[in-house]
Amino acid sequence: MIIDCHGHFTTAPKTLHAWRKQQLEHVNDPRNQPKPSDLRISDDDIRDAIDQGQLKLQKERGGDVTLFSPIAGQMAHHLGNEQTSQVWARVCNDLIHRVIGLYPDNFVGVCQLPQSPGVAPANCVAELRRCIEELGFVGCNLSPDPSGGYWQDPPMTDRFWYPIYEEMVRLDVPAMVHVSSSCNPCFHGTGAHYINGDTTAFMQFLLSDLFTDFPTLRFVIPHGGGAVPYHWGRYRGLSLEQAKRPLEPLLRNVFFDTCVYHEPGIRFLTQVVPVDNILFGSEMIGAVRGRDPNTGEYFDDTKRYVDACAHLTVDERAKIFEGNARRVYPRLDQHLKNRGVAAAAASI
Amino acid sequence: MIIDCHGHFTTAPKTLHAWRKQQLEHVNDPRNQPKPSDLRISDDDIRDAIDQGQLKLQKERGGDVTLFSPIAGQMAHHLGNEQTSQVWARVCNDLIHRVIGLYPDNFVGVCQLPQSPGVAPANCVAELRRCIEELGFVGCNLSPDPSGGYWQDPPMTDRFWYPIYEEMVRLDVPAMVHVSSSCNPCFHGTGAHYINGDTTAFMQFLLSDLFTDFPTLRFVIPHGGGAVPYHWGRYRGLSLEQAKRPLEPLLRNVFFDTCVYHEPGIRFLTQVVPVDNILFGSEMIGAVRGRDPNTGEYFDDTKRYVDACAHLTVDERAKIFEGNARRVYPRLDQHLKNRGVAAAAASI
Repeated sequence: MIIDCHGHFTTAPKTLHAWRKQQLEHVNDPRNQPKPSDLRISDDDIRDAIDQGQLKLQKERGGDVTLFSPIAGQMAHHLGNEQTSQVWARVCNDLIHRVIGLYPDNFVGVCQLPQSPGVAPANCVAELRRCIEELGFVGCNLSPDPSGGYWQDPPMTDRFWYPIYEEMVRLDVPAMVHVSSSCNPCFHGTGAHYINGDTTAFMQFLLSDLFTDFPTLRFVIPHGGGAVPYHWGRYRGLSLEQAKRPLEPLLRNVFFDTCVYHEPGIRFLTQVVPVDNILFGSEMIGAVRGRDPNTGEYFDDTKRYVDACAHLTVDERAKIFEGNARRVYPRLDQHLKNRGVAAAAASI
Repeated sequence: MIIDCHGHFTTAPKTLHAWRKQQLEHVNDPRNQPKPSDLRISDDDIRDAIDQGQLKLQKERGGDVTLFSPIAGQMAHHLGNEQTSQVWARVCNDLIHRVIGLYPDNFVGVCQLPQSPGVAPANCVAELRRCIEELGFVGCNLSPDPSGGYWQDPPMTDRFWYPIYEEMVRLDVPAMVHVSSSCNPCFHGTGAHYINGDTTAFMQFLLSDLFTDFPTLRFVIPHGGGAVPYHWGRYRGLSLEQAKRPLEPLLRNVFFDTCVYHEPGIRFLTQVVPVDNILFGSEMIGAVRGRDPNTGEYFDDTKRYVDACAHLTVDERAKIFEGNARRVYPRLDQHLKNRGVAAAAASI
């Protein structure tokens, strides 16, 4: 079974964007903001968006299930305020829930959180709980920088963040560390801010006692872990010198996806990072949508790169494609079992 | 010949730090700031710092010449103001000049610039010119973020930066893109801010027409190019989609060093990035000073990793160790020729 741990509803109908625009135009005037019920998207609109988008590519590329979340770049926690973020997260998550209702075999939900710059993530607990317990989602996206590129909230290891971690632990769900768009002209979104966010969060974890306080808390760092695997020696050295401990125990709590868009990068990732810490992901449809003129294949068809890794055994592949996702997202595992999909023996 | 393009005077005598502390204590009171002549460092102090530090390691590891610049983390452009940055850059560069006077065979100068947040880099032209034309330096370090982690100046591709580029072009010297320390608690200096700075600058270059405006302008991106080589497919795709051109021509102007602290990382770098764009560097003595307990060797002994790359030919090694540095830093080449050190045939 092929589980893609990283997919976004980037093809969402344009009416969603129009609704958001209207909401932001009335940011300080909640009475004149559009209501969630004002958003008109039919089941056919959703089918049009999915059938020719994520579902088509999932099938073409041989995937089975995608962990599906709202458009990362449109979370835009830096726009509006806490109130608009609350409503916007709810609207986006409800839309994901509708996708899952229409395609229960192909997509499983991961939620956006109503973060807002300067607002303690305690304000995200209720929406996380709603998405997990009422909508059946299995994880969340958590931005380390709600300011959108100015990095003005405390590091993710500060107690400021602990209420959301307590709830994640209670619900036994991981977070993908995922920034949203950048409003800082220095940082291109998918080319700099995304990758920097990944690297930054890893280094925060490395120096902290977060996982002493929350031994079962789990994070997936997307985009292949940012710069981390490439600089694995640097991080091993920094951990020994600055945290006075080896780096490796951090891997009980921190995982990487395979959103690295070339074969040498995936080969490198799977040779440097233990296979138990790598979850298949494609970010599809995401940062790079075109085909590599050298190969004629899509840059983000990362399954192809994993398939090409001759050094991986059958069992290792099964872990990357299935077993690790079931382990890191236990509610996904339970969901699949409830639907009669047992884990492949090799993947466990 | 082995040229290390990336070394800092991190072992500088403590009196330098005490001088800086005093300067910053009187930041708004220039009359009571210490004078450059108040800094008392004897030749023996310098010899003590170098002999047991960078020179010892250079010799032990088989290096010949290091491009030597002031402590990157202490440039700290975000501290003080434009006036203190001007004096501090001059003090630090003069100290590098003294090192070179004592060790003319082993070190060649690269200068710090008097950047200051919000101040146009035009204010760096005079110090750059002084260092190159009067002190015989061959390049400069240029920070893409003088704010120290808040990224509040325009991107490096903005016209704000053009005056310093005009002078770099006139003098025919490259800049190493190098942030200083981070005062943003989200970013660890050497573990996040350094690497993010590298990645960010590359993405700025990728999207811009900077090298149309300055066809001979050259940048070395240190720390192995940040996250860039690992995400080479992403950058190739982003260039095709967002800049509407292939990525590869950017390599006429942008180069990477080898400050990647493990053998698989260097093997990967030299397999993904064209060899003509890789300059040997160690950042020594820098971010990680200890030994890898798995091998017993220093993490930052990057020459060992290049040596271990069996896929590199003799000519390719000579380019990485010597020829590329002579080409990217033509004043270094001239300096070596003036001292009677011709380039190895294989390295050209």
